[in-house]
Amino acid sequence: MLLRLSTLFVRTLREDPADAEVASHKLLVRAGYIRRAAPGIYTWLPLGLRVLAKVEQVVREEMAVAGAQEVHFPALLPKEPYEATGRWTEYGPNIFRLKDRKGGDYLLAPTHEELFTLLVKDLYSSYKDLPLALYQIQTKYRDEARPRAGLIRGREFVMKDAYSFDVDDAGLEASYQAQRDAYQRIFDRLGLEYVIVAATSGAMGGSRSEEFLTPTAIGEDTFVRSPGGYAANVEAVTTVVPEPIDFADAPAAHVEDTPDTPTIDSLVAVANAHFARPDRPWTAADTLKNVVLALRQPTGERELLVVGLPGDREVDLKRLEAAVSPADVEPAGDADFAAHPELVRGYIGPSALGPNPAVADGAERTAVRYLLDPRVVPGTRWITGANEPGRHVFDLVAGRDFVADGTIEAAEVRAGDPAPDGSGPLELARGIEIGHIFALGRKYAQALGLSVLDQNGKSVVVTMGSYGIGVTRVLAALAEANHDEKGLAWPAHVAPAHVHVMATGRDASVFEAAEALAQELGSRGVEVVYDDRPKVSPGVKFADAELFGVPLVVVVGRGLADGVVEVRPRVGGESEQVPVEQAADRVEALVRGLLRR
Amino acid sequence: MLLRLSTLFVRTLREDPADAEVASHKLLVRAGYIRRAAPGIYTWLPLGLRVLAKVEQVVREEMAVAGAQEVHFPALLPKEPYEATGRWTEYGPNIFRLKDRKGGDYLLAPTHEELFTLLVKDLYSSYKDLPLALYQIQTKYRDEARPRAGLIRGREFVMKDAYSFDVDDAGLEASYQAQRDAYQRIFDRLGLEYVIVAATSGAMGGSRSEEFLTPTAIGEDTFVRSPGGYAANVEAVTTVVPEPIDFADAPAAHVEDTPDTPTIDSLVAVANAHFARPDRPWTAADTLKNVVLALRQPTGERELLVVGLPGDREVDLKRLEAAVSPADVEPAGDADFAAHPELVRGYIGPSALGPNPAVADGAERTAVRYLLDPRVVPGTRWITGANEPGRHVFDLVAGRDFVADGTIEAAEVRAGDPAPDGSGPLELARGIEIGHIFALGRKYAQALGLSVLDQNGKSVVVTMGSYGIGVTRVLAALAEANHDEKGLAWPAHVAPAHVHVMATGRDASVFEAAEALAQELGSRGVEVVYDDRPKVSPGVKFADAELFGVPLVVVVGRGLADGVVEVRPRVGGESEQVPVEQAADRVEALVRGLLRR
Repeated sequence: MLLRLSTLFVRTLREDPADAEVASHKLLVRAGYIRRAAPGIYTWLPLGLRVLAKVEQVVREEMAVAGAQEVHFPALLPKEPYEATGRWTEYGPNIFRLKDRKGGDYLLAPTHEELFTLLVKDLYSSYKDLPLALYQIQTKYRDEARPRAGLIRGREFVMKDAYSFDVDDAGLEASYQAQRDAYQRIFDRLGLEYVIVAATSGAMGGSRSEEFLTPTAIGEDTFVRSPGGYAANVEAVTTVVPEPIDFADAPAAHVEDTPDTPTIDSLVAVANAHFARPDRPWTAADTLKNVVLALRQPTGERELLVVGLPGDREVDLKRLEAAVSPADVEPAGDADFAAHPELVRGYIGPSALGPNPAVADGAERTAVRYLLDPRVVPGTRWITGANEPGRHVFDLVAGRDFVADGTIEAAEVRAGDPAPDGSGPLELARGIEIGHIFALGRKYAQALGLSVLDQNGKSVVVTMGSYGIGVTRVLAALAEANHDEKGLAWPAHVAPAHVHVMATGRDASVFEAAEALAQELGSRGVEVVYDDRPKVSPGVKFADAELFGVPLVVVVGRGLADGVVEVRPRVGGESEQVPVEQAADRVEALVRGLLRR
Repeated sequence: MLLRLSTLFVRTLREDPADAEVASHKLLVRAGYIRRAAPGIYTWLPLGLRVLAKVEQVVREEMAVAGAQEVHFPALLPKEPYEATGRWTEYGPNIFRLKDRKGGDYLLAPTHEELFTLLVKDLYSSYKDLPLALYQIQTKYRDEARPRAGLIRGREFVMKDAYSFDVDDAGLEASYQAQRDAYQRIFDRLGLEYVIVAATSGAMGGSRSEEFLTPTAIGEDTFVRSPGGYAANVEAVTTVVPEPIDFADAPAAHVEDTPDTPTIDSLVAVANAHFARPDRPWTAADTLKNVVLALRQPTGERELLVVGLPGDREVDLKRLEAAVSPADVEPAGDADFAAHPELVRGYIGPSALGPNPAVADGAERTAVRYLLDPRVVPGTRWITGANEPGRHVFDLVAGRDFVADGTIEAAEVRAGDPAPDGSGPLELARGIEIGHIFALGRKYAQALGLSVLDQNGKSVVVTMGSYGIGVTRVLAALAEANHDEKGLAWPAHVAPAHVHVMATGRDASVFEAAEALAQELGSRGVEVVYDDRPKVSPGVKFADAELFGVPLVVVVGRGLADGVVEVRPRVGGESEQVPVEQAADRVEALVRGLLRR
């Protein structure tokens, strides 16, 4: 394989594209791998397409090892199956919807659980047909509110989605494990660092779910790790709930004037100035903050919600959204407060919220749902709003003075928080989600009627798993992990070529030697980019080679007078002067070495 | 490669699917290659996907030989580029349109001229960058009014679309020829019979266009051939126009009572009964029929049109639509006639139509446009409607008594009509369009501003070609051309496997021998389907093998007691008894032979 730069359809850019924020996006565009067609929608140029094909090939090979068979579904699908499972509604504005000329409702599929379920239902009917694992590598669509970071969060993207079908839970566990193992092999082969974290299932449903994240500062996902090996997406972290406290001897609640204390900071300052306690100062952790938010259901329905949590923690919108999925969360606005005068902005307290035991029936109490952070256990004592401007209540005791409609995991997770499994304090890191596996259970099979006859001739609902890899996102993650300030630096097995040969200088002999070497390497199965451009300066050629990121660079130039060419790795390692007649052997050996790694 | 039928995701059907009319559709569904997901939208099962990949591979290899580079564009595209070329409107209801969450207009691309043009404009700027040929193999969408025949006319389908970019006409001609040659090699390698016919460019625009049709009785396209080598799609056939006739001595036109003659047949009968001419009887060819039709523009605008043509020919709607592209043609309805009382149904005559010289200004004359078949040259004499019920005019002379607004190619082409190039009488045949190549010229480059600097530093608009192969349709055409009443019968190089090994009987020794042979063949690079299903009868196994259509079938069964297996081609040829220890060698040799063909 020999790509000549004189004819290869590519142009490198010296400037970063205006809309690019992350390195992979900047460099993939600048090096001529991809090109934006619309927000979150990209065109693949020849170099990019070659890398994509190599990533896909690794995925295909490991899917085959895992026993999954390849199929291919349409992207344009009718509404009905997605209506049967409720996802037509649940996806809300996050999917592309359209009508055909006859007025039929269609969508561009964001994932294919429904269709795989129906296909298996169509073809199979017996336990003897199972277990079964199917997959496709196919173009998916999501109408992201904020497409960003190039390929990392796009609206049209390539996914590998696999699905498993089993008669029982043990079968599902084995199928899940087979895909999990395949994912580890895939990311290992791609040389992509990853962490497997517990995750929430979200709109997908199901009993168990893990994400594969590749750690990177530019990742959109935050995950936690403990020294004892716990790892989870922040959305999946559950709060360690303290023991309830005996409140028999707790003082009675008392309302105090706390003028101009609409914020936690101002409240803590006033409390310490005027209501100091002897043993230690008040802190934000002593206050109970009540945050008003609005939930927007996919159906469009909107409902207010008050979340009560310790004043030293913020509401984490992603954790909250995971907890209330499939609803979206919006801030409450002036109209909401106007409609609920009982919610006194800045001074909202539990006495006006929840099924409060201290408030007699018929007393003024909001109808808005009230959910508490799990840390607010019975017996905990709080400074919190008294539902009047400029007034707070002290020593308000949970379980005695107020209760709520329930608890919710909405507070931020912080470094140092205890791991839920007792394995030590959590540390936080950021990552890109490159894979997500779900033990779906029977949700889809039930909704769509996929049953088989078991060994006793009894009809049993099939249990399923769903396993996704964002193939185009993996490519971006590889670029993110393999670049420097000069450009891309691909691992050999996914690079668009193995060797970048360049002819520098104007002598015909240089071009002849470079051409001969490029052809010789190509004939040996080495994939070569050959910079044969006649009137391009060495500086530009070097810069382009650094941008492209092919792992080995061979410079045929001044050294030729002394019978040598220069061979050097794109990153790290030493450059070598190799006699021209040994160059093909030496380069081939280096390439084989890189590919074996 | 070894596919075991005990685990392969496939189920054969003994019955034809209810909606299938053509053999390829019936058999691809029955053999478990594809499955319908929605009208004109199909899912690919493992066997189908393997064939598709092989067809794509042939296309890729020949595109590389033709010097075309592979890229990949999104399917979901913004409206603007298609608006710039007018196609957003021209496609009318034939494309899928949708809005994103921000209200932006998008389409699912039916073809990508605009995007390729813009990409080249983005990257290239000099004549030195050209010629350039790019292609993609990608999923396309058309909202067909009548999806039919399975993969032959689908709404989501795979296309190879290539585009060429040149500075001048000679360059375009060379690029066009390179793709044309590649198409011939592709269809030759696939073993698909084809005819190259002159075609109309339709909505695509451009100066020259040819279609590759594979002849088959179930084809939707009609084409013509002459003994002298002329070949064209019927839409592209131009009428041979007779010489004008001197009408100095023609008798004056005379109106006659012809009661109850609303049809050509009734008119001819009355003419012969009451107005017989001495030399020969009147025939339909002596009458001039005026047909009222409505044109519907993509903008929705509707306009009536009267087409005048000899009474022995029908209007061919496809030819008429090609002539009035991008408008669609609809029949005129009662409301149209009510709105135009001057058009007397069944008795419409030229005197009321066109810019008629015999009618004084201000006389009652319709505003409806009137176009004539090219055969109606000056001096021809006609029996035609007198614009009164039950009356016709005789000896109405074209050019003397009436003229029209122009001519139109709307009359049907008939076997025996002369070829426009004088190469003899035409014969008609039907085919499936498997490829279409267009010398587009500068239409798209002009509309989207793609220019480069030429050798003199002058900006010149680039000239383009566009070249499409319906990849999924080619697969259907291959199935159409390679089947019998029992099932599919693939050529070896596109078959899902080379050999179908089956174990028939219940003896463990049969399964052991079959397994060993399947594995041995697999290890030699022969692609094997192995029917290892333990409790399936030989009858079912034979029927499935015939349905699948793998070119060589090896039966390991009763003969094993005598140390032989049976080897036979799926179609034609003799079955052989081969000693089991020589079976792998013999089968491998036969496969190599089939692949060399």
